[in-house]
Amino acid sequence: MDAGGKLLSLVTLIFGYVAAGYAGSLLVVPMDGSHWTAMKVIAEEMGRRGHEVVVVIPEVSMRLGPSKHYTTKVFPVPYSKDLVDSMYDRYIKLLSRKQSFLEKVVNLLRNFANVSEFIRVTAESLLYDEETMSYLSGKKFDALLTDPLIPVGAILAEHLQIPSIYILRGIPCSLDFEVTACPAPPSFVPRFFTHHIDRMTFPQRVVNTFISLVEPFMCKVIFRSFDELATRFLQRDVTVAEMLKRASIWLMRFDFTFEYPRPLMPNMVIVGGINCAARNALPQELETFVNKSGDHGFVVFTLGSMVSQIPEEKAQLFLEAFRQIPQRVLWRYTGPTPANLPQNVKLMKWLPQNDLLGHPKARAFMTHGGTHGLYEGICNGVPMVMMPLFGDQGDNVQRMVTRGVGEVLNIHYTTSEEVVWALNKVINDTSYKEKIQKLSAIHKDRPIEPLDLAVHWTEFVMRHKGAEHLRPAAHNLNWFQYHSLDVIGLLLSVVAIVIAVTVKSCTFCFRKCCRRKTQKKKKE
Amino acid sequence: MDAGGKLLSLVTLIFGYVAAGYAGSLLVVPMDGSHWTAMKVIAEEMGRRGHEVVVVIPEVSMRLGPSKHYTTKVFPVPYSKDLVDSMYDRYIKLLSRKQSFLEKVVNLLRNFANVSEFIRVTAESLLYDEETMSYLSGKKFDALLTDPLIPVGAILAEHLQIPSIYILRGIPCSLDFEVTACPAPPSFVPRFFTHHIDRMTFPQRVVNTFISLVEPFMCKVIFRSFDELATRFLQRDVTVAEMLKRASIWLMRFDFTFEYPRPLMPNMVIVGGINCAARNALPQELETFVNKSGDHGFVVFTLGSMVSQIPEEKAQLFLEAFRQIPQRVLWRYTGPTPANLPQNVKLMKWLPQNDLLGHPKARAFMTHGGTHGLYEGICNGVPMVMMPLFGDQGDNVQRMVTRGVGEVLNIHYTTSEEVVWALNKVINDTSYKEKIQKLSAIHKDRPIEPLDLAVHWTEFVMRHKGAEHLRPAAHNLNWFQYHSLDVIGLLLSVVAIVIAVTVKSCTFCFRKCCRRKTQKKKKE
Repeated sequence: MDAGGKLLSLVTLIFGYVAAGYAGSLLVVPMDGSHWTAMKVIAEEMGRRGHEVVVVIPEVSMRLGPSKHYTTKVFPVPYSKDLVDSMYDRYIKLLSRKQSFLEKVVNLLRNFANVSEFIRVTAESLLYDEETMSYLSGKKFDALLTDPLIPVGAILAEHLQIPSIYILRGIPCSLDFEVTACPAPPSFVPRFFTHHIDRMTFPQRVVNTFISLVEPFMCKVIFRSFDELATRFLQRDVTVAEMLKRASIWLMRFDFTFEYPRPLMPNMVIVGGINCAARNALPQELETFVNKSGDHGFVVFTLGSMVSQIPEEKAQLFLEAFRQIPQRVLWRYTGPTPANLPQNVKLMKWLPQNDLLGHPKARAFMTHGGTHGLYEGICNGVPMVMMPLFGDQGDNVQRMVTRGVGEVLNIHYTTSEEVVWALNKVINDTSYKEKIQKLSAIHKDRPIEPLDLAVHWTEFVMRHKGAEHLRPAAHNLNWFQYHSLDVIGLLLSVVAIVIAVTVKSCTFCFRKCCRRKTQKKKKE
Repeated sequence: MDAGGKLLSLVTLIFGYVAAGYAGSLLVVPMDGSHWTAMKVIAEEMGRRGHEVVVVIPEVSMRLGPSKHYTTKVFPVPYSKDLVDSMYDRYIKLLSRKQSFLEKVVNLLRNFANVSEFIRVTAESLLYDEETMSYLSGKKFDALLTDPLIPVGAILAEHLQIPSIYILRGIPCSLDFEVTACPAPPSFVPRFFTHHIDRMTFPQRVVNTFISLVEPFMCKVIFRSFDELATRFLQRDVTVAEMLKRASIWLMRFDFTFEYPRPLMPNMVIVGGINCAARNALPQELETFVNKSGDHGFVVFTLGSMVSQIPEEKAQLFLEAFRQIPQRVLWRYTGPTPANLPQNVKLMKWLPQNDLLGHPKARAFMTHGGTHGLYEGICNGVPMVMMPLFGDQGDNVQRMVTRGVGEVLNIHYTTSEEVVWALNKVINDTSYKEKIQKLSAIHKDRPIEPLDLAVHWTEFVMRHKGAEHLRPAAHNLNWFQYHSLDVIGLLLSVVAIVIAVTVKSCTFCFRKCCRRKTQKKKKE
């Protein structure tokens, strides 16, 4: 770029900031783990655009940390890093065990209870840390950004009386639909954990409808501890649902190359793929490694930000498979290096996943099916072999399978042969590559980048103290009124009365007629 | 701008086109009258961006005409300009008549029949004009843009087998909700012509729900002639609803500064205010006239593109009112100039409405409440006095009244005093100005301009031969399945059977118990 060009860029940059002409302050209450990925992108971009951004983080965490684009406010927690690590270790150990249905349910419930308790303790540590709270109160934030799946941010927004922006993939019991008054007909909007697609058979629709009917009760159970915490902390009767209803903007981490088309509300903004914007060149060492893969190319293998190590026998199973394919493999793996590591496999403690997937020699992506990973696969047009672990991942991979861009394996039961089969299939059957490239083109053919959209609406809420004009009047109705059940009841009653009166009148007339005839006959 | 700057602009321009890198061909089937306003903006912009745009227009029309940015293809019609003019004259004459309810209904039906017949004849003239049809078939268009309120474009898209983009304010019988599978709960989505707002009383909800139930039958009546025309022309059984279901993108001519928040589908794109982008300086003569208005400023008075003349006694009523206010008035009026025209009033055969409303001295906007006009009021932040004439206008003005940015008058019954009162109120009570300015700021605080959005999605459909990924699976369900009535029926039956069996069993046990006791007693 010449001097004139540089000057021009600088002028454009300055003009951009002046034109935006607005700098406010944003409080970010993060959710640890993979959920932080997209939030961090927004937090950093808001800082880059000149806003004051404060991120509150617990002193012990998995992925939360400082950045030059935002300030961190650290609060103490009554547990150590070991506890966090051990929670995941326990889960990972289960991967190698073949469990019975009963064991599965017990382990699921035990895990849920453990994680819930951990989340509650962290939330309480923040809310009841006087120093942090007085710091936050003094700051006079314009808005708060959080993931509502852990509603501590919602409680904080309520306490500080500031509007909030939520970013999320969804809430398992569909609380997001309920609190936004967003219709989600169970006839074509599949519920979480069902693994249904949007075209359901009648029995599937029965299951889906049944789940949609019991979801409110599931929500009650899931958020009970937070209902209690909110009521205790805010010193008034309040539920998570009531707090969530007041959110100004919902940034939804999907678009319709991933999610099935379904109704949306005006305050829902689609930002799927927000995490794959930034791409850098590969470090020299990696570039050399992948380039040496020749025409066969390479495979990227990660199980998400939280699972970097798997039981040794599982690891051996994958190595056995990789030994049989001509591709090179880059595997994020933090366990001890196995003795018999095949030549074509490179283990790494961390790998630049998005940059690798963007490389022209990337042939397949082995992933656990978290949304961030799947979107990196979509953005870069790389077919996928998916092994869902927990949460929404089972449903996510289903969405990719229906689009013909990947194959799914059950990590608990899979074999080397199956892994080889799946990799060969997605690499050598060209339909996978064609379909993912088409999906990628559609995903990227958008009028505005998802990050710009997220930043715009965050700034909008800060500037206008919310987004009241997007708030539907449905919030003033209870569920009975929302579904017009009272009106339908009245209309059915009217119809019933009309029918009853008509029938009675007819019967009466008919009888009178008959009687007259009978009397006539008798007289005759 | 210096030479370097000019060169840069040119480079940016060229780069813009090359980056877009796509030029296709678009067929536009316009709707005459005010509906053409927004369509024309898109047609011209598409031409400006290098696409081939062909607009088919009847040889006789009200507002359709050529432009340097698109090609016109004119087709013959079996009526003269006099017929078009006389249809509106007849309507305008009714303005001065105080009609009884029965007269109103009769006139409404007569008008509806006349306009419907006129529309059908025009549609047939296009579809059965061999020369035009062979020209269009030869063109191999990538997509078709039309307003689905008159579904001739939909028939043409079906015939040419090309994807379509619709631009509309809405369809009176809510056919747009039905064919997009978009939920529109009658509990908070008011129906056309009810004048309800989104917060309804119980009786209003009853009316709204009742209307939503009879709407499918209304649609059948409204579109009967087009069902017949489509079946005849395409030579297969097809309805308007079936054709409309296949639309790729719906450009909705509203946003939520105007419309009440309600659910949307992924293929609905909000482009409200698309018509107020372009603003020019006023001609010198007008600039001088409005500047001489001093601190009092001026009022802009138009009754839309179709009504430029009103009965003389009505005109006198308005002149009488204008005589009593200190503001100057610019009135679009094509009738004979009255003898006693007040000094502060200027009559014009045509006026640059948007440019005038953008002038800092604009104090009030007297309008019939068409969406284009209302959006020009919103964009420019000018309080309004609204006199709805027909169609959606009654509902439109209601939306503005609830936001406190205008007053509404009944043009059939209003008096000079009332006009003076309304103008003084919106001009001197500062709350109107404050509220419209706030609404204006919210309307304009958007991540992307509506015109760019409309062009993007039009081009998207052209590039990808549709927008299949936004098509909900709901299209595969009939209404019974869509609302899960079959599933609910099954679930209720199961509940009923369980209850019945329980009751029967209990009764049986109870009787057995009783009998034993009775027998015991007898024995005793």
